[in-house]
Amino acid sequence: MSTSVSPLAPTDVPSMPEIAGVKLATAAAGIRYRDRTDVLLAVLDKGTAVAGVFTKSRCPSAPVEWCRARLSRGKARALVVNSGNANAFTGKTGKQATALTAQIAAKAVDCSPNEVFLASTGVIGEPLDAQKFDGVLGNLAATAAPADWMAAARAIMTTDTFPKVATATVKLGKANVTINGMAKGAGMIMPDMATMLSFVFTDAPIAPAALQSLLKGGVEDTFNAVTIDGDTSTSDTLMAFATGAAAAHGAPKISRAGDPRLKAFTKALHEVLASLSEQVARDGEGARKLVEIIVEGATTKTSARKIAMSVANSPLVKTAIAGEEANWGRVVMAVGKAGEPANRDKLSIAFNGVRVAFKGARDPSYDETQVSEAMKAPKIQIRIGLGLGKGRDRVLTCDLTKEYVAINGDYRS
Amino acid sequence: MSTSVSPLAPTDVPSMPEIAGVKLATAAAGIRYRDRTDVLLAVLDKGTAVAGVFTKSRCPSAPVEWCRARLSRGKARALVVNSGNANAFTGKTGKQATALTAQIAAKAVDCSPNEVFLASTGVIGEPLDAQKFDGVLGNLAATAAPADWMAAARAIMTTDTFPKVATATVKLGKANVTINGMAKGAGMIMPDMATMLSFVFTDAPIAPAALQSLLKGGVEDTFNAVTIDGDTSTSDTLMAFATGAAAAHGAPKISRAGDPRLKAFTKALHEVLASLSEQVARDGEGARKLVEIIVEGATTKTSARKIAMSVANSPLVKTAIAGEEANWGRVVMAVGKAGEPANRDKLSIAFNGVRVAFKGARDPSYDETQVSEAMKAPKIQIRIGLGLGKGRDRVLTCDLTKEYVAINGDYRS
Repeated sequence: MSTSVSPLAPTDVPSMPEIAGVKLATAAAGIRYRDRTDVLLAVLDKGTAVAGVFTKSRCPSAPVEWCRARLSRGKARALVVNSGNANAFTGKTGKQATALTAQIAAKAVDCSPNEVFLASTGVIGEPLDAQKFDGVLGNLAATAAPADWMAAARAIMTTDTFPKVATATVKLGKANVTINGMAKGAGMIMPDMATMLSFVFTDAPIAPAALQSLLKGGVEDTFNAVTIDGDTSTSDTLMAFATGAAAAHGAPKISRAGDPRLKAFTKALHEVLASLSEQVARDGEGARKLVEIIVEGATTKTSARKIAMSVANSPLVKTAIAGEEANWGRVVMAVGKAGEPANRDKLSIAFNGVRVAFKGARDPSYDETQVSEAMKAPKIQIRIGLGLGKGRDRVLTCDLTKEYVAINGDYRS
Repeated sequence: MSTSVSPLAPTDVPSMPEIAGVKLATAAAGIRYRDRTDVLLAVLDKGTAVAGVFTKSRCPSAPVEWCRARLSRGKARALVVNSGNANAFTGKTGKQATALTAQIAAKAVDCSPNEVFLASTGVIGEPLDAQKFDGVLGNLAATAAPADWMAAARAIMTTDTFPKVATATVKLGKANVTINGMAKGAGMIMPDMATMLSFVFTDAPIAPAALQSLLKGGVEDTFNAVTIDGDTSTSDTLMAFATGAAAAHGAPKISRAGDPRLKAFTKALHEVLASLSEQVARDGEGARKLVEIIVEGATTKTSARKIAMSVANSPLVKTAIAGEEANWGRVVMAVGKAGEPANRDKLSIAFNGVRVAFKGARDPSYDETQVSEAMKAPKIQIRIGLGLGKGRDRVLTCDLTKEYVAINGDYRS
């Protein structure tokens, strides 16, 4: 566990409003950590719609399988999240643990186990003792309250150094609706659908299928465009819950994602997801620099994404940034190995606005002092121009430091 | 530059015999380093056949382009290798530098520039001053001698901590023929054809097309099965030179790679390439452990290779090994993210022969003390059983340590 907060932590933490229909409570169940909360219960009003996107790993965790199997029902009454144990690669025991947890939560909240959604994060391969939730969840259900979103975000942290929240309030029809989100990240992060754990709640009355469509659309350029270490978790989960409570003060009921009245909501959802995913990058294990990679002039957006990911996942590029070196030779290498159309003699590269390479060679006007100064900033933008077409994409990552190695060399012991 | 030799360096360094038809010389041309040799000239007798495999990077270095364009001629009289500057991403200047170097070498050796092969390794993006070779190559040609293979291997090092050589002598027909090889590696290594720089010399009389075929066949399970950091160099080069001098003492002239008389030679070539590529893994930047990943029971060999590479390139797996942790949860993660057929509930994993996971869950008989002890060894074998088919493959890598980050965070400064 890290003890100091990432220097890239946002300085502005939003004040999180309540969401009608959502009550939260946290507890210390002693799953793995001592002296901190590790369980979150979200109690959702009847009629809450649910949507979710999950890891594409061929070895998903038991909670991911539990949620996937119940998503098509579209309805949720409770979300139980624990940190400290991922309940992944735990065989039959893991499956039994999810069933038992859902049963305990269902009893506490008075709903069907099929309306309980689960997420677990932490060590892979350790059996999760779901009995620990017995008693705890009953108390949580009894004390759940609309207020403390920061406490909820804190309970789901593992190697995160700060809780990650975001909020937006927009008009839906003539009513105000609110979107609150939280996320946890830190390591094992290159989402291949959604990354790690993130939960978004809204009082907007949006039907499950429409919510699912909005979520899928929103994740592509937010969570799916963030990588810390190229490693895709077995537990990646992003879920959205829409209580529909805003219908009581006039928000229209939405059944289709394409409904033009959703325009402001869709934009706000994108901003909440973008904020959360950027915070995940800002809290990459050992990170000292936030790195934004922009690829322009690719043949397609998909090609631009692949090239940006190749640069973002290159250990040599990431260590160079940690060393405050504008080592564009390594960027060239990472572009070259992506396997996507690229023409060396059309390639241009800039670090924080300072162009260092132009049309396949060092920029003649390139000033080492200027670029060295630029590399000291906490945020580094690498802009890569391919000069081939109109494909453009953007990916966020962080640098690779000795602290990443230290954190991951003794996480389990 | 590292100052201490990798703890994984081989303790047995072979005595390198001479190869008739090959003369070597090295010099300090001051390309980048001080107080060390940085240029190697190999002078090859008339009639030497050449073969080569090169990086698949879309941004290859100028020397790679030079060699590729001349490979089909099949004949070589000289090889010039420099360390300290890769002459990659150097635009027209880079192309001019290769032409000038070849011209200087051709004059020194008395051949056509098209019979001169070139390789450069070091920093990307810095123009290479080929004038530095003027005079130097003339002296080298005059003093070249059959003897000092270790000096040659030392001259091509960059962040390598030890020179890498291998040798084998086998029968071809009734004559003895010898294969000598050298390589340099260390960082930016996940070959996508050949890795870094490696040169193999033999006195066997093998025609260019046959030599090319043998080399392609040999690289697949040797250099192409090694990864240090998942980064593919712009300069990856593996070349083979066959002087044919052994024909004078009775070795048959070989024109086809399928010739049954090549059986022992093909095996010996494989062993030389395997030794060199393992040495590259043993000298991975900052490496403290050699890691062998064996994947069995995959649907195909190709699928096994992809899964093994996913594990070998996972920063989380590599940092866990640096921390001497048998963190098989991260192995599960890396198998899961490979995108290849895998069934979580059939998966088994063993570290150095200690089975920790069996059929999708922790092995019931798994003894933490036993596996902790096993993880202290300098070589770690991860054996992954998928239980799906007969596909099998093996990949070599090394652990990811703080030293890797240190070496690459200030390489250029």
